[in-house]
Amino acid sequence: MNIAIVGVGNVAWHLAQALQKAGHTITAVYSRNKAHSEGLTTLLPNAVATQSLNFRTIVADVVLIAIPDAALPGIAEQIKVKPGTIVAHTSGSQSLAVLSTITGANYGVFYPLQTFSKNATVDVQQVPVLIEGNTEATIDLLTQLAQTISQKVERVDTDKRKQLHLAAVFACNFTNHLLGISQELLQKADMPTDLLQPLIQETIKKATTHHPYSVQTGPAIRNDQNVIDEHLRLLQHQPNLQAIYQLLTQSIQATKGNNYSSENPA
Amino acid sequence: MNIAIVGVGNVAWHLAQALQKAGHTITAVYSRNKAHSEGLTTLLPNAVATQSLNFRTIVADVVLIAIPDAALPGIAEQIKVKPGTIVAHTSGSQSLAVLSTITGANYGVFYPLQTFSKNATVDVQQVPVLIEGNTEATIDLLTQLAQTISQKVERVDTDKRKQLHLAAVFACNFTNHLLGISQELLQKADMPTDLLQPLIQETIKKATTHHPYSVQTGPAIRNDQNVIDEHLRLLQHQPNLQAIYQLLTQSIQATKGNNYSSENPA
Repeated sequence: MNIAIVGVGNVAWHLAQALQKAGHTITAVYSRNKAHSEGLTTLLPNAVATQSLNFRTIVADVVLIAIPDAALPGIAEQIKVKPGTIVAHTSGSQSLAVLSTITGANYGVFYPLQTFSKNATVDVQQVPVLIEGNTEATIDLLTQLAQTISQKVERVDTDKRKQLHLAAVFACNFTNHLLGISQELLQKADMPTDLLQPLIQETIKKATTHHPYSVQTGPAIRNDQNVIDEHLRLLQHQPNLQAIYQLLTQSIQATKGNNYSSENPA
Repeated sequence: MNIAIVGVGNVAWHLAQALQKAGHTITAVYSRNKAHSEGLTTLLPNAVATQSLNFRTIVADVVLIAIPDAALPGIAEQIKVKPGTIVAHTSGSQSLAVLSTITGANYGVFYPLQTFSKNATVDVQQVPVLIEGNTEATIDLLTQLAQTISQKVERVDTDKRKQLHLAAVFACNFTNHLLGISQELLQKADMPTDLLQPLIQETIKKATTHHPYSVQTGPAIRNDQNVIDEHLRLLQHQPNLQAIYQLLTQSIQATKGNNYSSENPA
């Protein structure tokens, strides 16, 4: 297929290259900043760098919009395509309907469930791609396109995609922040930050093969108030961390006795 | 060395077997419940199951106490050993001094920094063991003992060990809980819980090779208030999760602009 890409961030970067590798032709890359789109088109032999959102003169079966969520409504308003072109965005949190105002287009969602960085290799074949579309034909075509780069393609409507995105914020964004706090505490105590690595790896491994609630360890689940009090004392000059410690401790204790099966239901 | 073990939980279970495998002799296993200690002594050809904390009649260079933190002071009070025997506990949160009342003993800490489950294999060689002792000779002997089962043995005093334990609560106990919340959200939305696995794995990988603050992603760090508001709306019937979402979002935003190096300082 011929594909135009809107955006030059991490998602655009990885998707453009995965699609090209799968045999598709990237015909154009849009960025407000020409140097930015040229940075990506140098890797794509058939792509032009464009600063226009009018794609009527570009050969494209699909226009893929990979830009920050907050910019999506504003960009969608300006896009012009030939009738019947499919316009799809790659956002986890934006509705399908945000693209409904594009005259004559079919529209959909092509959401790769992964965190991308330009300098880190990702095996896109293992990245779930979640598809939504305004017609069955749009869904079919986006599904076929996704299956050329990923083994895990699922059809998911806007409501479920939003729930999934919310779950990802807890599992990934918040988890990453806790790992950052932990590293900060180790640095303040002048301890090597890699000391916790085996424990972190084992924690994640266990949470993959069991329901995390069923393998919860630590002072909170043991109701070990002496240790909890001592930890709160150690955090006395960091009220933000104290608040997080207290709230998560209470939340862990609230899961107690719910008899979560230790089998992973996945 | 000849070693007696107090306790039959996960830590006792893994340490006893690792020590035996390294060529040491486990001579006794204590539990209040005889059936429990016999469950472990069946795996240890030279060990007797005992319900007494008087180890004066047991051959032991080291008595290793691997019991829940809260039970440690009460058990320590009752232990009797031959003069010069080393008594060490395996707790991350308890002080060295908790063992100072044992008449005639040397005492120390032998803290394996890992989460153990009976049915999960752990490569003990990769588990950091943190050592403390009341005399240099005690530290030396516990260090030698630890080096027979682990490649990562460090001397760490009580204050630093407590800081480390606190950091581990954030990195492991709290992280596990967030993974549990995420799984619960997926189940409520009737989504497969393995969908987030590639994203979780990549998040942890990135947080290992970079300072987690420097690779933070998601609506909080982007100040994407529309998405944040939508997530809080989705959580409107779960005030506990709403509170966690808000507090961690604020905490992530507070790290912004601190210019954390993306290199892992470890």
